[in-house]
Amino acid sequence: MTQDKATNITWHEGHVTRDARNALLKQKGATLWFTGLSASGKSTAAFTAEHILVAAGRLAYVLDGDNIRHGLNKNLGFSAADREENIRRIGEVAKLFADAGVITLTAFISPYRKDRDVVRELHVKAGVPFIEVFMNTPIETCEQRDPKGLYKKARAGELKGFTGIDDPYEAPASAEVTIDATATTPEQAAGIVLDYLRKQGILPA
Amino acid sequence: MTQDKATNITWHEGHVTRDARNALLKQKGATLWFTGLSASGKSTAAFTAEHILVAAGRLAYVLDGDNIRHGLNKNLGFSAADREENIRRIGEVAKLFADAGVITLTAFISPYRKDRDVVRELHVKAGVPFIEVFMNTPIETCEQRDPKGLYKKARAGELKGFTGIDDPYEAPASAEVTIDATATTPEQAAGIVLDYLRKQGILPA
Repeated sequence: MTQDKATNITWHEGHVTRDARNALLKQKGATLWFTGLSASGKSTAAFTAEHILVAAGRLAYVLDGDNIRHGLNKNLGFSAADREENIRRIGEVAKLFADAGVITLTAFISPYRKDRDVVRELHVKAGVPFIEVFMNTPIETCEQRDPKGLYKKARAGELKGFTGIDDPYEAPASAEVTIDATATTPEQAAGIVLDYLRKQGILPA
Repeated sequence: MTQDKATNITWHEGHVTRDARNALLKQKGATLWFTGLSASGKSTAAFTAEHILVAAGRLAYVLDGDNIRHGLNKNLGFSAADREENIRRIGEVAKLFADAGVITLTAFISPYRKDRDVVRELHVKAGVPFIEVFMNTPIETCEQRDPKGLYKKARAGELKGFTGIDDPYEAPASAEVTIDATATTPEQAAGIVLDYLRKQGILPA
């Protein structure tokens, strides 16, 4: 804060501190990065956690295909470079949200370890908590669920480069949280994530 | 919300509503888009407003060169296409922040009316309040201030394409708020903006 003593006028040349916003919100901004196969339960777990958090008076926001694909990343396709840029931008936006104090949940397959590690690194550099949530649901379960019929199309060769079928999913080596949705309800999955946040002091105990 | 009656398990397949987050924060998410020449007072007014808001318990966040240029937009240069994409991405991110309930202040020269109108349009489509704040400080004042010596360099021909010198600044035709920093302190400028937010019901009266 700068104060001109002669006139008693105050102004600011820089950002409010992260701590000030965290104190206001009574939580620490953080990114919860859900990763896993299509139909592994990422979105449902993230949305369920978002609803529980907001109902409890905590500010949470999900970044997913719905609010990213037709907006920020509408000029990206499915080339290798575009997929990498897609995840990079989402990572940068999540970092800004978390910096602002928001508990930010991202729900994207994000199959490549390298791309997720780039996002982790930019959070670490900024001192913003990054929590990788690996939805380790076996492909058999995902394929059985197949709510959008995508696995069926991929098996029939109508969809190319589908993660888990003809494109690799690189499992995290050391995710902070790992959940298998086969035997875990979305509510339980959200509960596991929220317990982790409380243990980390991101949410009040 | 989906509830499986047999098991009493609940889960969610979609986002928390904007209204729920606004109620939690006791404010409406909105984008305050500051535009004006270099040294016209955009950043100082935005930061001063951010500090006043957070001190009053309201969640506000400034997007500026500091947190955008070396992050989300680090892969953009200064070609016409890149400048346009720069503003588009900032606009999309501001919209997401405002959707999340945050009073979002952006501080970029954003000299072209067309680019600002693209950002306005995407807010209007999403039903998110967009407030253009035109820092209408005469170039003579900006050039006299010249805190970073940029006008001097531009006049000497060392900087090309500098807004107001050899690149146009297209003034908004109908900004919601217009401020001339020549005779307005940063604190007064912030006050003008916050009064506008109260009148619009974005902040509690």
